[in-house]
Amino acid sequence: MMIRVAILGATGYTALELLKLLVRHPHVEITALTSRQEGKPPVSQIHPQLHSRLDLPFENLTLAEVTNRADCVFCCLPHGASAEAVGPLVEAGKRVVDFSADYRLTDPAIYQHWYDKEHVDPQRLDQAVYGLPELFRDQLPAAQLVANPGCYPTSANLALAPLLQASLIETDDIIIDSKSGVSGAGRTPSLVTHFPECNENLAAYKVGEHRHTPEIDQTLSNTCGQQVNVVFTPHLVPMTRGILTTAYSRPAGNASADDCMKALQEFYAQQPCVRVVDHLPATRDTVGTNYCDITVRRVGERILTISCLDNLLKGASGMAVQNLNLMHGFDEMTSL
Amino acid sequence: MMIRVAILGATGYTALELLKLLVRHPHVEITALTSRQEGKPPVSQIHPQLHSRLDLPFENLTLAEVTNRADCVFCCLPHGASAEAVGPLVEAGKRVVDFSADYRLTDPAIYQHWYDKEHVDPQRLDQAVYGLPELFRDQLPAAQLVANPGCYPTSANLALAPLLQASLIETDDIIIDSKSGVSGAGRTPSLVTHFPECNENLAAYKVGEHRHTPEIDQTLSNTCGQQVNVVFTPHLVPMTRGILTTAYSRPAGNASADDCMKALQEFYAQQPCVRVVDHLPATRDTVGTNYCDITVRRVGERILTISCLDNLLKGASGMAVQNLNLMHGFDEMTSL
Amino acid sequence: MMIRVAILGATGYTALELLKLLVRHPHVEITALTSRQEGKPPVSQIHPQLHSRLDLPFENLTLAEVTNRADCVFCCLPHGASAEAVGPLVEAGKRVVDFSADYRLTDPAIYQHWYDKEHVDPQRLDQAVYGLPELFRDQLPAAQLVANPGCYPTSANLALAPLLQASLIETDDIIIDSKSGVSGAGRTPSLVTHFPECNENLAAYKVGEHRHTPEIDQTLSNTCGQQVNVVFTPHLVPMTRGILTTAYSRPAGNASADDCMKALQEFYAQQPCVRVVDHLPATRDTVGTNYCDITVRRVGERILTISCLDNLLKGASGMAVQNLNLMHGFDEMTSL
Amino acid sequence: MMIRVAILGATGYTALELLKLLVRHPHVEITALTSRQEGKPPVSQIHPQLHSRLDLPFENLTLAEVTNRADCVFCCLPHGASAEAVGPLVEAGKRVVDFSADYRLTDPAIYQHWYDKEHVDPQRLDQAVYGLPELFRDQLPAAQLVANPGCYPTSANLALAPLLQASLIETDDIIIDSKSGVSGAGRTPSLVTHFPECNENLAAYKVGEHRHTPEIDQTLSNTCGQQVNVVFTPHLVPMTRGILTTAYSRPAGNASADDCMKALQEFYAQQPCVRVVDHLPATRDTVGTNYCDITVRRVGERILTISCLDNLLKGASGMAVQNLNLMHGFDEMTSL
Repeated sequence: MMIRVAILGATGYTALELLKLLVRHPHVEITALTSRQEGKPPVSQIHPQLHSRLDLPFENLTLAEVTNRADCVFCCLPHGASAEAVGPLVEAGKRVVDFSADYRLTDPAIYQHWYDKEHVDPQRLDQAVYGLPELFRDQLPAAQLVANPGCYPTSANLALAPLLQASLIETDDIIIDSKSGVSGAGRTPSLVTHFPECNENLAAYKVGEHRHTPEIDQTLSNTCGQQVNVVFTPHLVPMTRGILTTAYSRPAGNASADDCMKALQEFYAQQPCVRVVDHLPATRDTVGTNYCDITVRRVGERILTISCLDNLLKGASGMAVQNLNLMHGFDEMTSL
Repeated sequence: MMIRVAILGATGYTALELLKLLVRHPHVEITALTSRQEGKPPVSQIHPQLHSRLDLPFENLTLAEVTNRADCVFCCLPHGASAEAVGPLVEAGKRVVDFSADYRLTDPAIYQHWYDKEHVDPQRLDQAVYGLPELFRDQLPAAQLVANPGCYPTSANLALAPLLQASLIETDDIIIDSKSGVSGAGRTPSLVTHFPECNENLAAYKVGEHRHTPEIDQTLSNTCGQQVNVVFTPHLVPMTRGILTTAYSRPAGNASADDCMKALQEFYAQQPCVRVVDHLPATRDTVGTNYCDITVRRVGERILTISCLDNLLKGASGMAVQNLNLMHGFDEMTSL
Repeated sequence: MMIRVAILGATGYTALELLKLLVRHPHVEITALTSRQEGKPPVSQIHPQLHSRLDLPFENLTLAEVTNRADCVFCCLPHGASAEAVGPLVEAGKRVVDFSADYRLTDPAIYQHWYDKEHVDPQRLDQAVYGLPELFRDQLPAAQLVANPGCYPTSANLALAPLLQASLIETDDIIIDSKSGVSGAGRTPSLVTHFPECNENLAAYKVGEHRHTPEIDQTLSNTCGQQVNVVFTPHLVPMTRGILTTAYSRPAGNASADDCMKALQEFYAQQPCVRVVDHLPATRDTVGTNYCDITVRRVGERILTISCLDNLLKGASGMAVQNLNLMHGFDEMTSL
Repeated sequence: MMIRVAILGATGYTALELLKLLVRHPHVEITALTSRQEGKPPVSQIHPQLHSRLDLPFENLTLAEVTNRADCVFCCLPHGASAEAVGPLVEAGKRVVDFSADYRLTDPAIYQHWYDKEHVDPQRLDQAVYGLPELFRDQLPAAQLVANPGCYPTSANLALAPLLQASLIETDDIIIDSKSGVSGAGRTPSLVTHFPECNENLAAYKVGEHRHTPEIDQTLSNTCGQQVNVVFTPHLVPMTRGILTTAYSRPAGNASADDCMKALQEFYAQQPCVRVVDHLPATRDTVGTNYCDITVRRVGERILTISCLDNLLKGASGMAVQNLNLMHGFDEMTSL
């Protein structure tokens, strides 16, 4: 079986990683790449890594043209723009994996609060599946619209959800200190991501204001059936790829690190993309892969859950391919 | 007035930074550099940065020889070895700034617990001044033995001590998530600090076991008069210099971020090496300087205090020169 | 068809990259990993990246044991040690890909001059095939012993051999200025590769003395039938992976950049691992792949050939798998 | 004696480094910082490193206002814009150090060829002194207008001029392979300097087209009295600061490396900012200083001269302060 795939907004880093995975996917034919580029530049001009591996131009296509060419669409557009494209594609019967935040939050009021704009397609929020396979695997085969999760939420949710579900940690006292490589900021140059500014530098940013906060809260709340409000602090680290999350929570009923490790091992026993490890995980070991590595320690009255992943793979494009595989009944690890 | 200065164990990074500061100090003459190097290699052979700036050999000197040559001794030896050298020097009437942990902890039992060895010079612990000028300025002019603080404790203590002293945060719920550049691990090669291992990598290390923990606990406890036991998690960041500390505490009596900022501004109003800033501090702005930059935010039910400094300067050698200046009545910022 | 593969000296970076390629090779079963490690540590302990991907211990095996377990042996031992292992393996009928320099130079006197020791297995030098498929493809299917080329020589030889063969550049005036990431120095820690020493630093090393020089000279001389003696200068660049070579030569008969580009395009037309590109190549585009990207410019009276590759893949383990594929009649790009 | 100093275009990296030097210069009072910023933002808002060290706003001043406030003006404007500002300042009797290329090339036709625009102030080119103190020291005390040299030319000219002057190398066969950190590209963000693009990456750029080429040719030609046309290839290295230049030339009359080293040592014997070293120089040892480190090797029929410096200090702002000192009769190393 071959799936014809289109990618909307294919100039960014997540699209590049997606393309690198899809060109070696045995069941995928890439049929369209869209962007607002003038002319029809070959993909190798924007992404020289793909030279001789993919011979396709960027095109400024209409949604109708995309509909004609593809069975499945990966949407890498900015939030807002994404919701405008997804509606017509879904209505034309296409399956869509959306990389933006537009379909991640189920409550349009929370979306409006954090994204400063009214949601343009709120009636479709119920229909979207939150594409974190380790938590919502069962919903993927039938999903028509998948909201691909954010990178920080994935690192935090995979670390904490099993412990909340097993009632091993308290729900009302969770601090998430995350550190990310610079590719998480995307491909558009800015002073913050200018090499001499972020090389040899470390800083927190958007403290208390990062838009991934409600996404973490929503998933963790769903997991445990209670409202969770985390304190989330992102930091920018001088490396290209990788996220490390150090989560601090309070043990429930004096749960030990061993109790937590066992809960994680059990939860992920049949999940091929999460490795519960004894050692302290290092982003290096996950970069270039679709793995999330997790461990637990207890320090004083705190449970520390430490997780890491490649923000562009398990935190974005790798997970999108994992979702594609599960949506279409392919082996979950195909091309990963 | 000229002070004759010797440096023991002068091959490491803290010694190099110390030398770079001292060669332009108007009241200092560097008279001896010791190491176990064979021969008498010129300093520029080990530290090429000092080529043409300092013409002095490394020598394998006895403590008696050091005593003859110097008025003030900077001791950059490993812990344990340091305590063996400091005693005779102090008894010979020398003033000593010790970079090791040997005289930082006032309780020899705590030292033994964390350093796995009995303290060889416990009777002198009372005499040592903890050389964090912002907290113990008054004791420095008369100090004969100064224990130069650790890099992580300095970033944490400068961020939290004023808030504890002002009773703006609770004492029993402090989490310190710190991130350090690799030079903090010293100049001895190891797999962990091998470039391909730590470049493009991020990981926590020594979780719950780092020896700077009791040093933070001791200073914060002294500040507020209650026992403080922090959760301290260090991380290794792919950059050479800089420490960023993100400290999470619980506001006392609903203290606001503004309350905390005011307390910090007041506390450091006359202290030239701490800058209380409105923006989120970045290690880049402190590297190469003796500044510690600090700010505060409130997120939900937490006070976040974020501080940064150059681990080799304000976290080690810069502070040592600051201590030297205050010990001898020089302007605090001389050569800094 | 399945090949049973053993790797000798499997703790280093080239072995790790080799393993990452081989675990997804459809015709390879990895059956033995040797090292002098005590005990039988699982591979994931030394290489956490392989956690859950390969379940095999490191073992301190005899050559006889290796012979029993494997059809094909990748030898990642140091030079000298390698020649001692290769002989018995070849005599036992095994096919061997040797990563060391031991079988690269055909003249044992040149080996002795550059490696300061007598060659222990000189009679087998004639039998070894220099495993640069783009130049010696025809010899690989029948090869029993393949000398896997050095990383610098591969970047230089792929850039220059076609131009020499086409008589487009002079043979007596070639300067090769190469720049390499730090992983080229291997996994053993040293001061030179200590993060704070090589991060934010650039330097030339082993000027006029690098052991890859005779390997470049030999291959280029073979290509054009005249003795070539290049000036070769390696530099250490603060990045983990990648080599960029800037080669300066003198045009023969006023050859233009276009003439040279055409010669390269023709030479590599049917070679899947070399991309002749119009733009100035960047190591980033080849890292993680088995490609070598090459372009040509003419500046004044000089032809500049600029090439880049991933030193651990096309410069080592990727090429070794390419060799394996060609030796066994698999598709050249299998698992690459 | 106090000099009132203004900096035009003070938001970039060279201005920041200049400010860090000037705030501790005992004979300088900084009186004006200009930019086209709206409002009058304090310098610490643009350059947080200067927080608490300099209390001055950026202002959008006219040249008349600058003239009133300053005795000496550092002009950090883009080329073209610089020439428009310098004329009026010089005519108002101010002394000017210009960081742009506008007054470096003595021939306006060459300027027009490389900079694609007619020079707006050609009649003043004769009056400008090329501010490389090691070559033109005598002209600086009387200079009213100093053209501060480019970073690449400084690394190349300091390495080669003494050898050309001593007739130790041929004039017609010089290849300059230079490698620079990213801060050389300035503070304006672009895709090329976007962290994920240039981190872990190495590439040549502007091959045969870099505007520093005629500046090198001019200075070297002046040195030896013959027309020199170098082949110059710049590369972008993933580090913030530092330039390393590897220059390949042909020995004249079989000159040895020793002959060349002696010539360099003699030439720089009384020059405090150049260190002729025996070891292979590393950018690390010059970053943060105003030193240029140089050594020589002979490899086959080639002389290799290898030099390095901090592109923002000896390659820009450090040299500008050195020029200021020599123009005003201060000690050459003041504040350096």
